[in-house]
Amino acid sequence: MKFPSPVSLSWVAALIDAEIIGDANAQATGINEIHKVQSGDLVFVDHPKYYDKCLQSAATFIIINNKEVTIPEGKALLLVDAPFDAYQKITDYFRPFVPSTKSISDSAIIGEGTVVMPNTFIGNNVVIGNDCVIYPNVTILDHSIIGNNVVIQSGTVIGGNAFYYNTKKNREVWFKRMNSCGNVVIEDNVEIGCNCTIDRGVSAETVIGRGSILDNLIQIGHDVVIGKNCLIASQVGIAGATTLEDGVTVWGQAGINKTLTIGKGAVVLGQTGVSKSIAGDKTYWGTPAIDAREKQKESVWMRRLPELWKKVME
Amino acid sequence: MKFPSPVSLSWVAALIDAEIIGDANAQATGINEIHKVQSGDLVFVDHPKYYDKCLQSAATFIIINNKEVTIPEGKALLLVDAPFDAYQKITDYFRPFVPSTKSISDSAIIGEGTVVMPNTFIGNNVVIGNDCVIYPNVTILDHSIIGNNVVIQSGTVIGGNAFYYNTKKNREVWFKRMNSCGNVVIEDNVEIGCNCTIDRGVSAETVIGRGSILDNLIQIGHDVVIGKNCLIASQVGIAGATTLEDGVTVWGQAGINKTLTIGKGAVVLGQTGVSKSIAGDKTYWGTPAIDAREKQKESVWMRRLPELWKKVME
Amino acid sequence: MKFPSPVSLSWVAALIDAEIIGDANAQATGINEIHKVQSGDLVFVDHPKYYDKCLQSAATFIIINNKEVTIPEGKALLLVDAPFDAYQKITDYFRPFVPSTKSISDSAIIGEGTVVMPNTFIGNNVVIGNDCVIYPNVTILDHSIIGNNVVIQSGTVIGGNAFYYNTKKNREVWFKRMNSCGNVVIEDNVEIGCNCTIDRGVSAETVIGRGSILDNLIQIGHDVVIGKNCLIASQVGIAGATTLEDGVTVWGQAGINKTLTIGKGAVVLGQTGVSKSIAGDKTYWGTPAIDAREKQKESVWMRRLPELWKKVME
Repeated sequence: MKFPSPVSLSWVAALIDAEIIGDANAQATGINEIHKVQSGDLVFVDHPKYYDKCLQSAATFIIINNKEVTIPEGKALLLVDAPFDAYQKITDYFRPFVPSTKSISDSAIIGEGTVVMPNTFIGNNVVIGNDCVIYPNVTILDHSIIGNNVVIQSGTVIGGNAFYYNTKKNREVWFKRMNSCGNVVIEDNVEIGCNCTIDRGVSAETVIGRGSILDNLIQIGHDVVIGKNCLIASQVGIAGATTLEDGVTVWGQAGINKTLTIGKGAVVLGQTGVSKSIAGDKTYWGTPAIDAREKQKESVWMRRLPELWKKVME
Repeated sequence: MKFPSPVSLSWVAALIDAEIIGDANAQATGINEIHKVQSGDLVFVDHPKYYDKCLQSAATFIIINNKEVTIPEGKALLLVDAPFDAYQKITDYFRPFVPSTKSISDSAIIGEGTVVMPNTFIGNNVVIGNDCVIYPNVTILDHSIIGNNVVIQSGTVIGGNAFYYNTKKNREVWFKRMNSCGNVVIEDNVEIGCNCTIDRGVSAETVIGRGSILDNLIQIGHDVVIGKNCLIASQVGIAGATTLEDGVTVWGQAGINKTLTIGKGAVVLGQTGVSKSIAGDKTYWGTPAIDAREKQKESVWMRRLPELWKKVME
Repeated sequence: MKFPSPVSLSWVAALIDAEIIGDANAQATGINEIHKVQSGDLVFVDHPKYYDKCLQSAATFIIINNKEVTIPEGKALLLVDAPFDAYQKITDYFRPFVPSTKSISDSAIIGEGTVVMPNTFIGNNVVIGNDCVIYPNVTILDHSIIGNNVVIQSGTVIGGNAFYYNTKKNREVWFKRMNSCGNVVIEDNVEIGCNCTIDRGVSAETVIGRGSILDNLIQIGHDVVIGKNCLIASQVGIAGATTLEDGVTVWGQAGINKTLTIGKGAVVLGQTGVSKSIAGDKTYWGTPAIDAREKQKESVWMRRLPELWKKVME
């Protein structure tokens, strides 16, 4: 996330009780988790395994628990004992959790011609465009942004927490959830079916691109970016921070792993499991996903295995 | 859908601004999409590839964008530039979208002994029989018809839009949703779990047959017909216009493709992917689904592949 | 379930109109279905195939439809024509279905610092601890018990009916649901995502152990016991009465069959289908699930099948 306006490193250091190694007057413009960092950002790292990755990332300011590292030119460190807790404190400051007490928040903006049906929840700072239809029993959580001519059907939840945890197996509770200070952006002419779940970004945006259509019971993880005119069938799951380029088709019950890219116009057949990035304008099938014609051939060879054994034994 | 009463072809032509080729006084009794057409129906077609299929279908009146076709005996054409838009205009006329403003519509009919729990939505013209239990946070959309002794658990959505789109990749927004003027019919003694989604028919009925039981998180596509005493386990997906005959069992996470028939008493094992119609009274497993014993054997052969290689290399 | 206080066998016999074979003054302390029976319990059996299993189980009192059986020392029979109906009568007596008329029941207890957002339903006798966040449009059904620092996200349903039916194919309606007189227990520091379904036990507890985290659209069947610090990704399904020991990880869209045990620290990869109990501290993949490295090798051999054929044909 970008801050409403830049803050000095000394201000951040005071907030999280950190020692500054570098220029205290430098200005931080935002904070992001490592997959989404930009120049001017704060980022945090608490495991030596990831020190280098964070120091070499686009981020300018590194919240870290070790000063014995080489600091790249133009960057600065914020030294603390618990970088994860410092990250939480900063995101809590800029995006505090404000429980809603009304079904439709007073701070929500709903456009002309938009229909919101009964039993639907609309949270704080939600913006919905014109001529949308929001069916009953929908949940649209804080900071979601929805375009024009969008349809969201019953039971769908927009903007749930990212499934993104700090894991340490040496404490009693292994998993501590990172605050998700990102949000969900749904562009114009998108249609979303019933009982879907679209999580908000950890620190950036989860995006459903213009004109894309989603069937029912679909999982869209945090920070997923879906291009324009994509078609996603029922019960598909797309894990965190994966990108679908424009015009991608994913058929029922397929699963796509995290941080992948699915090329423009690719077609992923039903029940396929995609574990690596795949090129566009091709059709994929199977787990792990391969070219659908290859997989089809495999199936045929498979059926002929007994015959092969017989031949060999002869 | 059938119209409340028959209308003359000239009346339809005036509504959609069409040229009539045939008998203007002929009476149209309904309108359906191509999978469900009956005699007396209007149907539309806008792609030359499907002209013949529509002209030769059971439909009597064809809304089409080309007069240079051979019209079968006793049929008539309605010539327009945009047949899809004409279809939408007719279905909008007979089944307009009327947004609900109350959690339980005044036009809903709820039988004696039926319990409707809080936070549940019941739409326009819904009919629910006697002695049903409708749990909290259920959504029952317009025109759904529910029998006696039916249980619908929390979070389930009955009557969502069909996932059925007119697709043209040469316009900015590729997908335009066809109005679903069909509905959902749930027969007596059916039990439906939590967070299921049962879409209404595009122009006909989605049916859950008497005594069938559905677990949680199940997707039932538009125009699916499920027979009597079927058992469907959690997270199963059944795509549009597929038929399950009586007494079919489908175990968890299985998927069944669209427009298929699953024979009486068939058993589909967990995670199976059914891509072709299958005969009754047999057990199926795998993707693509085959006889479960055959699949079991395949698994065994598969495990012995290294041994086979070794033998061949010797 | 345990009864609030023990009841004499003669009292039970009067309730269900049974003949006692044994000590009428013996005290029954509870009733359970066969997977969960304890000493002092009533259990029922109506099929000769299961007579022995029930008679030899931990249960002390057997509701049965045949007196020509050998009664183990210290046990007694309750003879009726329809044991299933007798079971339903007893569970109905001790845990009657009481439909809610308010979104939050007067008998619910909600701890300090706990936030319950709008449009959420909380049923009778629910207990929620301190400092929890219950998001909008959640459903928490009767008798659920929730610890401290628990997060339950939108659309999730806690405590749905067990998918557990008495099946007889010689009657018009094949499936009769057994009353679920069990409940759901969610321990401290658990986080549950959006649109999950967690069914209550048939007669015992469904448990989510301390510090475990669940993503979205997950199915947890009746009587499942999940240990501490487990991580379950989106769209996973776990069938009835299965146990996950502590620290188990299950990745997206995997399915685990009923009544299995998943050993401590096991990792189940995405889309895997687990059909047998598996040992801890190993990684599993495929359907049926095997050691992930073995499965990986199988995939490689599979790709080389055409080559193998070629070699053989030479």
